Amino acid sequence: MKIHVVKIGGHLINDKNFLNIFLKSFCKLSGYKILIHGGGEIANIILDKMKIPKKIIQGRRITDKRTLEVAIMTYAGIINKNIVALLQYYKCNAIGLCGADGNCIQSEYAKKEKNIDYGYVGEIKNSKSINTNLIKFLLINNITPVLCPITHNGFGTLLNTNADTIASNVAISLSKKYEIELHFCFEKKGVLKNIYDSDSFFHKVNFKLFLEMKKNSTIYNGMIPKLENAFFALKNGVYRVSIGSYYSLNDLYNKTIIYL
Amino acid sequence: MKIHVVKIGGHLINDKNFLNIFLKSFCKLSGYKILIHGGGEIANIILDKMKIPKKIIQGRRITDKRTLEVAIMTYAGIINKNIVALLQYYKCNAIGLCGADGNCIQSEYAKKEKNIDYGYVGEIKNSKSINTNLIKFLLINNITPVLCPITHNGFGTLLNTNADTIASNVAISLSKKYEIELHFCFEKKGVLKNIYDSDSFFHKVNFKLFLEMKKNSTIYNGMIPKLENAFFALKNGVYRVSIGSYYSLNDLYNKTIIYL
Repeated sequence: MKIHVVKIGGHLINDKNFLNIFLKSFCKLSGYKILIHGGGEIANIILDKMKIPKKIIQGRRITDKRTLEVAIMTYAGIINKNIVALLQYYKCNAIGLCGADGNCIQSEYAKKEKNIDYGYVGEIKNSKSINTNLIKFLLINNITPVLCPITHNGFGTLLNTNADTIASNVAISLSKKYEIELHFCFEKKGVLKNIYDSDSFFHKVNFKLFLEMKKNSTIYNGMIPKLENAFFALKNGVYRVSIGSYYSLNDLYNKTIIYL
Repeated sequence: MKIHVVKIGGHLINDKNFLNIFLKSFCKLSGYKILIHGGGEIANIILDKMKIPKKIIQGRRITDKRTLEVAIMTYAGIINKNIVALLQYYKCNAIGLCGADGNCIQSEYAKKEKNIDYGYVGEIKNSKSINTNLIKFLLINNITPVLCPITHNGFGTLLNTNADTIASNVAISLSKKYEIELHFCFEKKGVLKNIYDSDSFFHKVNFKLFLEMKKNSTIYNGMIPKLENAFFALKNGVYRVSIGSYYSLNDLYNKTIIYL
């Protein structure tokens, strides 16, 4: 039995047209499917409107109490529920969840790095932190989980969590029993050979090439953790991982396939 | 088989101490239970922070596009997910839902009244708009639904909906197969005899007394729709309805019991 685990992020979520094109493709995927979304840019807009300063260090958001509230409102509220309402319209019986819902994803406070306290940021210890029973139970009953990047620590506190990491851990947690295809979708065509040429994507990237690109600094910042999550998933039982555009979800060719 | 359908609203939701006392009582209810929450005051705080003007006519919020977004963020986001995280901490396996999730509550745009267009406000046509299959399926699997007052129209649009009406319709929809106890909880002890004396609550209110109080204007504005929802539920199969304080949920005496 196959499960598609699909992560969407980037500008894609901000643009209604792109999001609709993507969601229609998502509905066409055959078999069981799970959607995981990010949404950082919408959170930035709300933070600006509420005059809450943004603090990002080394690509990670410093999440104080007020920033956490905005993250919850944005990710678990407006983005998650709008996606679910659209999927219902497209006849996909979706249910929106954060990590606290049905205890589906537990996390721990992120460790300090170089004495930087990231605040209300959650890290998933490992794929055992995913409540696969709940996810399987929903899938078997033809309900499609839509997961937002808010988790909980089991002590009543919600934590802001990286959506790519959620996607790879969800994929791994289900890979013992199912054939998992993990798709990372965004506005680019795949892993770019040249970041200034949006058509220059690799059809295949293996671990050796990734290490070379990292060494030569030919991949941009956000792509490094995405690829690390991709390889982490492949090394831990996920059948196939791809990185590509919102419009090529059902297209095996126009995207980057990740190999070990 | 009994199901407790509990609505919480008013100042209760804004105050962490009250909310915690209430949630602990809620967890102690035996058997199946469903929680429905409002949260108008927190929405007002966010509207102020975002400098969005508030428009309320005859106790109903005029919901334009921006106000709807704040309602979704507040009700389906911050309030719903904080309640769920706390319930998980108290070992109640809760799942937070808006009406779009699993298509659990459909609504229609509210009709214009005296030429007033309420905007993105949803009205529940009748108790058939509640997806009882999903709710029963969750309850049977020991998952407690926590419903927020956001519904959807089935065409991809989310709508702001009265939480008391959701509570009575959910209660009615389940009353054919189950014995339903519907509790309206807030910061007051029950239906007050004298609105200036918070200890002066009725132990019982029947429909005749309600009509007299309405005629004599001895009940305040917000209580009238609450009592109308209470009688509507009783007339349509709900076994028992009570109105009382957040701390008397498990106490049969210190509250107002509603009779036909």
